[in-house]
Amino acid sequence: MKNILEYDAVEMSENGRDLIVLDQSVLPAQQKFLHLTTAEQMFYAMTLLKVRGAPLLGITAAMGLAVCMNRFKTKSVPAFEKEFLRVKHYLYISRKTPINLTWALDRMERCFYSGLEELAGTDSEEDMVRELKLRLTAEARSIKQEDTRMCLDIAEAGLAVLRAGAGILTYGNAGHLASSHYGTALGPIYHAQHKGYMPRVYACETRPGMEGARLTAFELMKAGVDVTLVCDNMVADLMSRGKVNVVFLGCDRVAANGDVAAEVGTCSIAIIARHYDIPCYCLTPTSSIDFETASGREIEIEQNPAFEVTERFFDKPVSPKGVKVYNPTFDITPASILTGFITEKGIVKPSKLATLKG
Amino acid sequence: MKNILEYDAVEMSENGRDLIVLDQSVLPAQQKFLHLTTAEQMFYAMTLLKVRGAPLLGITAAMGLAVCMNRFKTKSVPAFEKEFLRVKHYLYISRKTPINLTWALDRMERCFYSGLEELAGTDSEEDMVRELKLRLTAEARSIKQEDTRMCLDIAEAGLAVLRAGAGILTYGNAGHLASSHYGTALGPIYHAQHKGYMPRVYACETRPGMEGARLTAFELMKAGVDVTLVCDNMVADLMSRGKVNVVFLGCDRVAANGDVAAEVGTCSIAIIARHYDIPCYCLTPTSSIDFETASGREIEIEQNPAFEVTERFFDKPVSPKGVKVYNPTFDITPASILTGFITEKGIVKPSKLATLKG
Repeated sequence: MKNILEYDAVEMSENGRDLIVLDQSVLPAQQKFLHLTTAEQMFYAMTLLKVRGAPLLGITAAMGLAVCMNRFKTKSVPAFEKEFLRVKHYLYISRKTPINLTWALDRMERCFYSGLEELAGTDSEEDMVRELKLRLTAEARSIKQEDTRMCLDIAEAGLAVLRAGAGILTYGNAGHLASSHYGTALGPIYHAQHKGYMPRVYACETRPGMEGARLTAFELMKAGVDVTLVCDNMVADLMSRGKVNVVFLGCDRVAANGDVAAEVGTCSIAIIARHYDIPCYCLTPTSSIDFETASGREIEIEQNPAFEVTERFFDKPVSPKGVKVYNPTFDITPASILTGFITEKGIVKPSKLATLKG
Repeated sequence: MKNILEYDAVEMSENGRDLIVLDQSVLPAQQKFLHLTTAEQMFYAMTLLKVRGAPLLGITAAMGLAVCMNRFKTKSVPAFEKEFLRVKHYLYISRKTPINLTWALDRMERCFYSGLEELAGTDSEEDMVRELKLRLTAEARSIKQEDTRMCLDIAEAGLAVLRAGAGILTYGNAGHLASSHYGTALGPIYHAQHKGYMPRVYACETRPGMEGARLTAFELMKAGVDVTLVCDNMVADLMSRGKVNVVFLGCDRVAANGDVAAEVGTCSIAIIARHYDIPCYCLTPTSSIDFETASGREIEIEQNPAFEVTERFFDKPVSPKGVKVYNPTFDITPASILTGFITEKGIVKPSKLATLKG
């Protein structure tokens, strides 16, 4: 079995004309790589969750945009610009929540226009288009490389809280499959494994999306990490038996006061960890800290469709037809119950989050 | 839709020759009643979880034994006794854990031998067999009636902690489908509904067995109770939003110090309820309190098969093939985090459990 870290969840082909995507919607039953060449294919890969994970969506959008532009045949700069803006906007609206998606596409746009400015004196429009294509391709690759670097820095910082043979509980999927390399919450685990520390990981299955079962257990097993799957409601039992030394949580967005919006269920785990006095960290790039949002109260939480709870994944109904369902996308973990944040800039206590600003 | 409280999960036919069982293994997709007439059928109904719930298993075993004896044709008392002991032992070994099963069968045996003693002077063995059949049938019916009475007393006691429109969170299934009438943990809810208090119930789906989704949501909906299904990991979110006023938990066994062995996940919920200062009660007949077991530490917890977590209910694998799984049957909720016990003898604090002895 090939180590999953040997291939990426999203990659651009050498010639920049294909986006190669591991289809996460069919994992772990199938491992299927998609070769995407049109904006429509990229849009649906993102909306149908073939690609997911906030950092990975940013990379997908940027690389996807570069691929579309590399394949666009024109010798006219205005035509190239028009197509660029069309594709950019189209990918922009594929997903609502992930800040990384809009951030990556805006960065591609800045690259486009600064290129346009710098190349203003070029004689041939054809040369300009060729040069713009090269710049967009390089920019998309930079976005991915920077993400890889950031993941490595988080992994390095997180290693400080692990000892050899530590039992680590994680939730959802904030790993390799959600980003470019080590991921965020799983980063220190891969790093520890690489260094021979033999971490023991408990992956919560993460209802209703089952990201922990489908993706985290899958990628850790593939990488040879000792992983045990548990239902989300077994966390108290595990902790009461001393099997967990530290909790590593991912997140979607951190408010200025340190409240965390993350996959629903995250807050339950943080509360139980606190009850048993087990250190509980949120692992996140500082780019996910939203200093404009004062606290978790200001973060709007949407409801996901009931279908996800009552039908998705099941072979027949496991609940009565028409039952009311409460299915929030995220929950808010208050800063007060977290031990700290592990970021690419180091570990900080929730009360010191402001030191990471700027 | 017929109100579920209008029919019982287990009943004996008028003539005592059939055991009528609602097949819980196919709920909620199908509502199928089984007419059982042989010990083998009853044995498999219990082992294959067509009937489940500790109180209901006691009733099933007692009524099942009576039905088998009513159908046994003999004029010889020794032959009748031999068959009685054979069937009793056979049903005895169908399930290991539920104390109610052995308790009910032992009570049937005492009924049998006290009958034998009292009827010692009877001239005709045929008359004696006929009379023993009547006594066993009546005893089995008494066991069920007493269970119904006990459920009503728990319901009455629990009503004291509910106000009109209360939000109640429950876990697993300790309702009508687990006993003879109102059940234990759902008793006060049915009682409140009957009195027009309009309780709002949140039923946790209860991984991996899904008893909350399959059974609790089903029976409450059938009874017209306002019920909302949630995943087990949404409890902190619900509580943080003030949607839950009280938690009603069932149990399998209570230790002398008040530690509770219950469906795995129970402890997680009790910890979260405590974090939000929400009253959290264990609803149980006093017969489930095991004064011989000092604390939860002495209760052995078995592992259920990994299959339940990775495959049962799913249409295709939701986790990687061969993944390690941790799947304990129960967890132990420490007495210190429970608000109290609601029993047929009233409500007591965990520290006062000994007052219920004897």
